[in-house]
Amino acid sequence: MLGSTGSIGRQVLDVVRCFPEHFRVQALAARQNVTLLAEQAREFQVPVTACFAESPEVAEGARELLPGVLLGEQGLLEVATLAEADVVVAATSGLVGLNPTLAAIRTGKTIALANKETLVMGGHLVMEEARRAGVSILPIDSEHSALWQCLRGEQTCEVRRLIITASGGPFRRATLEEIRSVTVEQALAHPTWRMGPKITIDSATLMNKGLEVIEAHWLFDMPYDKIEVVVQPESIIHSMVEYRDGSIKMQASLPTMHLPILNALSYPARLDTSGTGLLRELCWPEVARLNFEALDSARFPCFRLAREAAQRGGTYPCVLVGADEEAVALFLAGKIGLTDIAMFIETLLEQHRPVANPDVPAILDACAWARRHTQMLYEQRYGRNV
Amino acid sequence: MLGSTGSIGRQVLDVVRCFPEHFRVQALAARQNVTLLAEQAREFQVPVTACFAESPEVAEGARELLPGVLLGEQGLLEVATLAEADVVVAATSGLVGLNPTLAAIRTGKTIALANKETLVMGGHLVMEEARRAGVSILPIDSEHSALWQCLRGEQTCEVRRLIITASGGPFRRATLEEIRSVTVEQALAHPTWRMGPKITIDSATLMNKGLEVIEAHWLFDMPYDKIEVVVQPESIIHSMVEYRDGSIKMQASLPTMHLPILNALSYPARLDTSGTGLLRELCWPEVARLNFEALDSARFPCFRLAREAAQRGGTYPCVLVGADEEAVALFLAGKIGLTDIAMFIETLLEQHRPVANPDVPAILDACAWARRHTQMLYEQRYGRNV
Repeated sequence: MLGSTGSIGRQVLDVVRCFPEHFRVQALAARQNVTLLAEQAREFQVPVTACFAESPEVAEGARELLPGVLLGEQGLLEVATLAEADVVVAATSGLVGLNPTLAAIRTGKTIALANKETLVMGGHLVMEEARRAGVSILPIDSEHSALWQCLRGEQTCEVRRLIITASGGPFRRATLEEIRSVTVEQALAHPTWRMGPKITIDSATLMNKGLEVIEAHWLFDMPYDKIEVVVQPESIIHSMVEYRDGSIKMQASLPTMHLPILNALSYPARLDTSGTGLLRELCWPEVARLNFEALDSARFPCFRLAREAAQRGGTYPCVLVGADEEAVALFLAGKIGLTDIAMFIETLLEQHRPVANPDVPAILDACAWARRHTQMLYEQRYGRNV
Repeated sequence: MLGSTGSIGRQVLDVVRCFPEHFRVQALAARQNVTLLAEQAREFQVPVTACFAESPEVAEGARELLPGVLLGEQGLLEVATLAEADVVVAATSGLVGLNPTLAAIRTGKTIALANKETLVMGGHLVMEEARRAGVSILPIDSEHSALWQCLRGEQTCEVRRLIITASGGPFRRATLEEIRSVTVEQALAHPTWRMGPKITIDSATLMNKGLEVIEAHWLFDMPYDKIEVVVQPESIIHSMVEYRDGSIKMQASLPTMHLPILNALSYPARLDTSGTGLLRELCWPEVARLNFEALDSARFPCFRLAREAAQRGGTYPCVLVGADEEAVALFLAGKIGLTDIAMFIETLLEQHRPVANPDVPAILDACAWARRHTQMLYEQRYGRNV
């Protein structure tokens, strides 16, 4: 498992804890939280651990707690390609997942993929390597898991469109004016999902939904004009597939990441969760009502920018990811407003000189360029006031 | 096609009309409407026709319009076992479908089954013959088609429950007192589906939903305690399957019989309906809202009676069908009230002496007994006032 101490990583271990007879953790890799990493390694009796923190202090701390710990990107690669593992859970956040995921694919591992950036920036590389190695990329994400489940036993060529659902985030009902002045606290209060801060902000701007469109494009080999988004505020319907005969299949559950995690880990089987306490059962009369609304991209320009970057292709999605990462950090630090995020990204996308069909270094370069230039843009515009 | 002039039969031909390159009608059988039968035979250039009317006048009329027409139950059997046909659409109403369906199965035909009574009364025979002959029984019914589609690519042993949706019929919101005094016209005004009169009344009493539970039991080999019903008044979600991991798959479309018909005829392919005018596309933001309610079996005792008859097994479901058929006819003739239907059925079920694992003659006997005794009961109770 790559990224065991983050929100997804911890929930993966919840699932493993419920089904000890089905899953065995062979290796754990984490970035910063070495205390939790050590605890996890102890609880699950994990033979191999890795800490890929950049900071030497953190690495030193890891070495004290976990004598045999692997360090740096090399450690991450060793975990990703460990001979004992059948499945690699890619749950790191950001860029760091791309190289180890590609390495895991090359060694024939099934990939349970929770990291968005990997497909958004490197989808062309990942899917090509997966095809070549004959490995499956299984989504850990409620929307893509729903699409994947609705596609089971069906033909991709018979799909009319994928319909990704969106909760709409905390500002679904807000005016553009109101969104302009939201606080960090308001933006972090997601109505249906508890997640890490970066993805929560991406959900508030609907950037997250744009990234999911790009992921769906790569995962299911679907052109962008066949991928739509509809707002389903209760987050009960996790996505839908409409077939060319007009039949629509939908997947539903109460909002939980444990289910998509379990679906990916247990595939092709479905394990019985009753009595495990892992999920709360969805009871229909209790649900009572499901709402559907159109997504208003005028109030959520990040969604439109993501689709545009995707259509342009090349390194544009890398700039999207890099600029968004940096702009979200600026917002979380209280330095810019929520609506500035889209403005920063749009400016960077305009300034970018794209590279077609980028390899890993070109991807990382484009992303680093976007991060650097987002900072520069911030300093130009707001620097004097800080 | 058995039953080409009824509501389902005509809609099957709508589908055939849209896809002439995929489907070819080899034979048509109808009961009463020989004028329409002759028109259909001409339009679709059908080489074999049959008229299974009991009345000699109707048979004579058929012979005039269609010189080579086959007559009687023998004609129906010939159509059902015609060498040229790959698929037999069983769309007759009532009892008459059982024998020809069994004959079609024995000659290795795929069955597209729209006739409810066939499985409700003879499910044990039909499914056993189908297993033996290695043929598929494909449902033509929005609910069972939905379940079947949600089960594609999945394992039956991993199903936690089937959840059949019900519109709730025209009296979903009515009090028991109000239901007692409804008119035939009110009962025939179904909120979401246009169907024949018998099934429309069965939908108003929710008997239809009880029959569907029994059909689902046989079609999907599912115990009754794993089959639930939830009211979905818009008739957009046609049914759901909940798996043991907690994941729920649902199938949706605007209410239409054309889609389940097409799904059965084109299986395993899905044909493109765009541009055919066959279906109106479901557009999510337009749908706006889906409601879910519990089914109140206190106000709809027919539903409870169907489940009870099913659990008791043997010839009880035959009595259910026979008594219901007769009682609905009495209601449609304005002779009894809507709530009397359940009372008649309950009385007959109490009086019945069941036969276990009935063969076809025992099934027909039990049904005939129930029809006769429903009439007798009516005469006893209301005879003097007529």
